[in-house]
Amino acid sequence: MPSRYLSFRCSVPWLILLLQALFLIRSFLGFPVAGGIYSPSNFYPEFQDVNHMVVFGFGFFLMVLRRYGFSSTAFNFLLIVLGVQCSVLIEDCFVFLRVQQDEVGMKSLAKAVVSMTAVVISTGAVLGKANPVQLIVMTLVELIVFYVSRCINRTVLQVPEHLTLMHVHLFGAYFGVAVTSRFPEPPPGLDKNRSTPKSELFSVLGTVFVWVFWPSFNSILADSKKEAVLNTYLALAVSAVAAFMLSALTSKDGKFRMTHIHSAVLAGGVTISFTAHSIQHPWIAMILGLLGSGLSILGSHCLQRCFNPALKLQDTSGVHFTFGLPAVLGAVAAVVLCVVEKGINKQWNNLSSLGYLIFVDIGAFCQTISTALVTGLVTGFILNIKLLKAVHVSKYFDDQFYWEVSFKMISG
Amino acid sequence: MPSRYLSFRCSVPWLILLLQALFLIRSFLGFPVAGGIYSPSNFYPEFQDVNHMVVFGFGFFLMVLRRYGFSSTAFNFLLIVLGVQCSVLIEDCFVFLRVQQDEVGMKSLAKAVVSMTAVVISTGAVLGKANPVQLIVMTLVELIVFYVSRCINRTVLQVPEHLTLMHVHLFGAYFGVAVTSRFPEPPPGLDKNRSTPKSELFSVLGTVFVWVFWPSFNSILADSKKEAVLNTYLALAVSAVAAFMLSALTSKDGKFRMTHIHSAVLAGGVTISFTAHSIQHPWIAMILGLLGSGLSILGSHCLQRCFNPALKLQDTSGVHFTFGLPAVLGAVAAVVLCVVEKGINKQWNNLSSLGYLIFVDIGAFCQTISTALVTGLVTGFILNIKLLKAVHVSKYFDDQFYWEVSFKMISG
Amino acid sequence: MPSRYLSFRCSVPWLILLLQALFLIRSFLGFPVAGGIYSPSNFYPEFQDVNHMVVFGFGFFLMVLRRYGFSSTAFNFLLIVLGVQCSVLIEDCFVFLRVQQDEVGMKSLAKAVVSMTAVVISTGAVLGKANPVQLIVMTLVELIVFYVSRCINRTVLQVPEHLTLMHVHLFGAYFGVAVTSRFPEPPPGLDKNRSTPKSELFSVLGTVFVWVFWPSFNSILADSKKEAVLNTYLALAVSAVAAFMLSALTSKDGKFRMTHIHSAVLAGGVTISFTAHSIQHPWIAMILGLLGSGLSILGSHCLQRCFNPALKLQDTSGVHFTFGLPAVLGAVAAVVLCVVEKGINKQWNNLSSLGYLIFVDIGAFCQTISTALVTGLVTGFILNIKLLKAVHVSKYFDDQFYWEVSFKMISG
Repeated sequence: MPSRYLSFRCSVPWLILLLQALFLIRSFLGFPVAGGIYSPSNFYPEFQDVNHMVVFGFGFFLMVLRRYGFSSTAFNFLLIVLGVQCSVLIEDCFVFLRVQQDEVGMKSLAKAVVSMTAVVISTGAVLGKANPVQLIVMTLVELIVFYVSRCINRTVLQVPEHLTLMHVHLFGAYFGVAVTSRFPEPPPGLDKNRSTPKSELFSVLGTVFVWVFWPSFNSILADSKKEAVLNTYLALAVSAVAAFMLSALTSKDGKFRMTHIHSAVLAGGVTISFTAHSIQHPWIAMILGLLGSGLSILGSHCLQRCFNPALKLQDTSGVHFTFGLPAVLGAVAAVVLCVVEKGINKQWNNLSSLGYLIFVDIGAFCQTISTALVTGLVTGFILNIKLLKAVHVSKYFDDQFYWEVSFKMISG
Repeated sequence: MPSRYLSFRCSVPWLILLLQALFLIRSFLGFPVAGGIYSPSNFYPEFQDVNHMVVFGFGFFLMVLRRYGFSSTAFNFLLIVLGVQCSVLIEDCFVFLRVQQDEVGMKSLAKAVVSMTAVVISTGAVLGKANPVQLIVMTLVELIVFYVSRCINRTVLQVPEHLTLMHVHLFGAYFGVAVTSRFPEPPPGLDKNRSTPKSELFSVLGTVFVWVFWPSFNSILADSKKEAVLNTYLALAVSAVAAFMLSALTSKDGKFRMTHIHSAVLAGGVTISFTAHSIQHPWIAMILGLLGSGLSILGSHCLQRCFNPALKLQDTSGVHFTFGLPAVLGAVAAVVLCVVEKGINKQWNNLSSLGYLIFVDIGAFCQTISTALVTGLVTGFILNIKLLKAVHVSKYFDDQFYWEVSFKMISG
Repeated sequence: MPSRYLSFRCSVPWLILLLQALFLIRSFLGFPVAGGIYSPSNFYPEFQDVNHMVVFGFGFFLMVLRRYGFSSTAFNFLLIVLGVQCSVLIEDCFVFLRVQQDEVGMKSLAKAVVSMTAVVISTGAVLGKANPVQLIVMTLVELIVFYVSRCINRTVLQVPEHLTLMHVHLFGAYFGVAVTSRFPEPPPGLDKNRSTPKSELFSVLGTVFVWVFWPSFNSILADSKKEAVLNTYLALAVSAVAAFMLSALTSKDGKFRMTHIHSAVLAGGVTISFTAHSIQHPWIAMILGLLGSGLSILGSHCLQRCFNPALKLQDTSGVHFTFGLPAVLGAVAAVVLCVVEKGINKQWNNLSSLGYLIFVDIGAFCQTISTALVTGLVTGFILNIKLLKAVHVSKYFDDQFYWEVSFKMISG
């Protein structure tokens, strides 16, 4: 398909150029002059950790497909550097529209990097099926929608700023699932969407990075960092233990399965993200880690056998059960914990205010998930119109379609 | 051997579940309520470094065997997340028994992660020969014995808290050697216990990580962090230089050998660990790094040719000469340096108090090493009883025995 | 060539031993006694980042050749641990000669690690062509010349200390290009100087590390760290975006080319290094990142097609366009920005003082680049005399010439 290919060639760099020019103009016009912008920040090490985790950790985490190593890492990188700038731009617009206070410098960057996690997770769902043009369009749409959704949560439902950001896994996963449901399925005989031990090893490398840096991710914007770090660490530890346990229990012959470990190890961090800063008893964090991990492995079996074939969707790196289900659990747990704590404090009097609290929390959660699903479906439709040159299914999961390589690719 | 296999399947997840339930109950009962637990800690970046080094660095450092990449990394990860919780639990028991003061929050976690290094090192000795059940039992026994040994050093011999933790390499290496001596030797024709350039590259990746983060490891619990960091860096630098020098000198044709580099590069960090905080002259640190590296390479030749065949033990990743011998050197050097410094200060009067000092220091060292050897041997016997389903030697060093993989493994 | 080989064997370890003995003696004589040396330093996390970036990031960044993985990483490591000590020694001499103030402890180490970047970059130019003896001699000569060049800039041209260190990319790249021009070209049929997807993946891993840690590199010695970090991050982000854009535009069929991404992604960090601490408007940083990236990709086409064949030089990892050209751009931009800022402040009066400023800045730049080229050529001649046993071209780019391996090498 040379004609399509040429048009693809024409569009990618110009799209990137257009965006970059926009960011430059905005930066020229919009950024406050010196002094103001370089507000003091004492969280540079945490910022480095999160940056490292998103760029490097997720980049290699996504490297599960045997012929898609270059694209996994490099497109993840491209989307992050574009998305971070886009995110700062969107925040700027909201400041301009008086919806949000002005926050400049490192904090703005940190929030941008955290927001990008949503896009990275969604990318995981369409991994190997979307071309760069589609990915960039998806990034833009997703970031804007995520900001709008956060804005609604913050202004209408009075959710604190840093908690709205923690909806990032929930939003990313369901947006990704909705988008991927609009992509045609790969033919059954295609064997490129497999992993090899070598690609799995790189993926393990990325997973371990994400695991190690997760406490920084959950604590970077929290008020009580110590609690957030400690609770996240405990939840991650328990979920890693549970991952091995459940993997051996559920797979044939009691062998471990690497994909289980990949997802379930991170599930604890996702589950705890809403409540890491507020849990006062470590055992609650540990229980949440355990449940998150269990839900993730249970989900991987159910979704892959029943849900996905029924809806004819293919979630390449399993973001639905790695990030989606544990995030739902985390959001529900946050409501329950909040109600129990408030209830105990007030000795279960004043139940109407408690009811209002539940209503608001569940409202925020439902708003996020439904926004993600609806806009994800719409985005999926948009991405598959002719204009954006969808990749033919036979070219799915293949580095050689995007990269100039004159030698045989990783084939393990 | 399907019957054995099924029983293996039955035991691993339940053992993990049992342990995790224990930790959860303990955490429910034992952890102090809020406020108390989240004691202030300003050493989060160092903690991250050490955590990263142990989980990621050692995980990939152990990835030397060509068909054992998944298990090396993943079992290391499993043992750490189990061991850290176990370590916190043991510390709790000691606090309960009034042997030790209560220390909560990040510091307790940091000490747990540092203690885990002993287990990681021992794992290196039995790498590829022990199944997960055996590894978990070994972890539990080793952690308990290490805590008891530290407790004796601290209470009877008055060794400062953070120095007792620095016996971690000494203890880990000799415990591992003793355990591995009870495992049957692999048949001579087996070629799975070889490395390939690819597995070596991953191992180099891990080694470099461990090297880079070692100053954080040696300084995290020290009182004088600046000295500890600088001395460790210098010792590591000199030992890396010496590693290349000695590798070229001792190998055929003056070529370098990667296994030499692996071990000798880290030897400097091990050697300096007892004295990093107290050395006042950088050249002493450099000399110690040089000696550690030399001893490690010399040891690798002697041990592999004479000692190991004589005792019919097989130390898969060479922990004896990588961690054991340099740790012995470091302990001896600590005594010598301490005596010389005290002697000079008191102008060599009061020799009896000096003698007592030597007695105590050597006592602590001998106690640690003999406890490690004796309990290691006992643990080795226990691990090889029928109940724990020892792996048949033909299944040694093979990922496919533990992991569900439908494609050919890394074979390089 | 066994005879040569034996002499090579004889020389490497003794050369290393000689150097190490020198450093030890110097450390014994020269280092100030306790207290003084351990000056307070609150930049340990940044130091760790830079150390990690240089040892690990550049080590894996250089791993592009398919049969040269061990040597790339390990020789980089050897040179750094030797060079850091050598660097401290040279600084000591300058202090002794009263050319420079005494700075001890961590800061001295940090400056030594930053200086080593010059050597690492030069190594990239002769990657696979120089043997360890040649590399070590090159390291020594380059470090001494770089210190002299910095000293001239600092004392004669009054360039601030930390800016003289930022000439490290400029110096390293042109020194490397000059040295490599004296090495004989590999025969046209040789296919060992190619990359494979596997070696490229490791190289991507290194590149991402270098990218993530670059803000720490640019800010470690700067006075205004916040500005340096933020400007560097923005420049890097824009240059990464531009790298993808330009790679798709310039290559056949609009595919991406990994070598473009490698170089152009880092170009932004190099370009901004002179001005990161002083730029007050983020859009200037972004423009510089864009220009740096563009120049790098443009340069990679022009240099590889016209310049390199004309001069018969072969720049193995393309340091000329990755570090050289962007550094020139950065130096020019620093002059322009400085003049514009000063000019605006003084409303373009007092043009003679402005002229003097331009003269000094351009002087420092020309002095660095010409020193690098001249001494590089001389070093190249010295390295290729018989005494240093140049490697025969047929043995270029081959791990097996340096490493004891009994199995087939990475051939992917």
